[in-house]
Amino acid sequence: MSDGDPSGGKHARGPYSKGIARRHQIIRNAIEEFAERGVDGTSLRTLGEAIGVSHATLRHYFASRDELLVEVYREHEERVTAGAGFEGGAVETIAASAERNRAIPGLVRLYATLATDALQEAHPISTEFIGARFRQLRASLADSIREGQDAGRIAPDIDPVDAAALIIAASDGLQVQWLLAPDEVDVRRSLTLLERLFPGSSDTSR
Amino acid sequence: MSDGDPSGGKHARGPYSKGIARRHQIIRNAIEEFAERGVDGTSLRTLGEAIGVSHATLRHYFASRDELLVEVYREHEERVTAGAGFEGGAVETIAASAERNRAIPGLVRLYATLATDALQEAHPISTEFIGARFRQLRASLADSIREGQDAGRIAPDIDPVDAAALIIAASDGLQVQWLLAPDEVDVRRSLTLLERLFPGSSDTSR
Repeated sequence: MSDGDPSGGKHARGPYSKGIARRHQIIRNAIEEFAERGVDGTSLRTLGEAIGVSHATLRHYFASRDELLVEVYREHEERVTAGAGFEGGAVETIAASAERNRAIPGLVRLYATLATDALQEAHPISTEFIGARFRQLRASLADSIREGQDAGRIAPDIDPVDAAALIIAASDGLQVQWLLAPDEVDVRRSLTLLERLFPGSSDTSR
Repeated sequence: MSDGDPSGGKHARGPYSKGIARRHQIIRNAIEEFAERGVDGTSLRTLGEAIGVSHATLRHYFASRDELLVEVYREHEERVTAGAGFEGGAVETIAASAERNRAIPGLVRLYATLATDALQEAHPISTEFIGARFRQLRASLADSIREGQDAGRIAPDIDPVDAAALIIAASDGLQVQWLLAPDEVDVRRSLTLLERLFPGSSDTSR
């Protein structure tokens, strides 16, 4: 919902809305392409070929490969988190999100690519997107931790932002280990250990 | 110590040892180069230019960019972890390693690049290296967790490998968040929360 018309131009009229619809269609096709094959070495040109869009058309809608990758991940994330709340607490929220990612390893790879690009000076769009994503996620999870502290479930001497950063980091890092060794690493089981520190509701373990 | 002569040919003789010494010298120069500038977009050619080695020479010692990156990280890690043990427990071991990385953000970036490459089919050398590294690290930390369970410090119903994967993941993920927001993320403080679940010795918090 960050830009454009999420309805894909359904209610809007005219060439502007058509352009938005076309842009969203390209993003949707790219999501499918990435989910299947990952993003390694994908230039705008080869991606255009894969989804049947000319390089010129792709350049019309996206200024760079980075911009397309960011928009693809943003739309994917909005789609999978639509309606998801923090009802189960911070750990359960992140574990449920990791669970949804299991079905689409190509998009876990895309996220890893964006996060690594974000660390490099040459990728300002990825740096901005991933930096803002982490910041928002830390703030939301920290609120959930504070609620747990107010309810007496979580130790009061835990810094909520430290805890939020830890939960996000654990989930991100576990998904990388899981992709490399799906039979040895169980993202949910490892994450659930954090419920002992940050219980989301009174009926969780311990 | 995984290959070649770690003494840089000091005790060996002849052209073979000279070749090994030269290879190690190139790796050492590359470590300095990466520590300063990171690795983004670094081809074997541009890296050769940066460290004053011809492309042909570099190709003589390293079959590919991936092989050089892996060898650089391997040597760096052996260097910084030399003599480091598990005395403080699993969490302290990983926190101390993350602490050492603070001084060399370029090598944290290199690690992120290797881990992301490892997820892609086109990088078998990185996949092999990072996969083996995670496996070994999980095994070592799981042993440390088991010791804590035997000593009665760590809850007996915790799966040691789940715990090990969680600690490694937290450290990896926190370093990424820290690079993007060094004033908002404190790797050691967040990791130390895990000491409450996996205390390394009786005198740690809680």
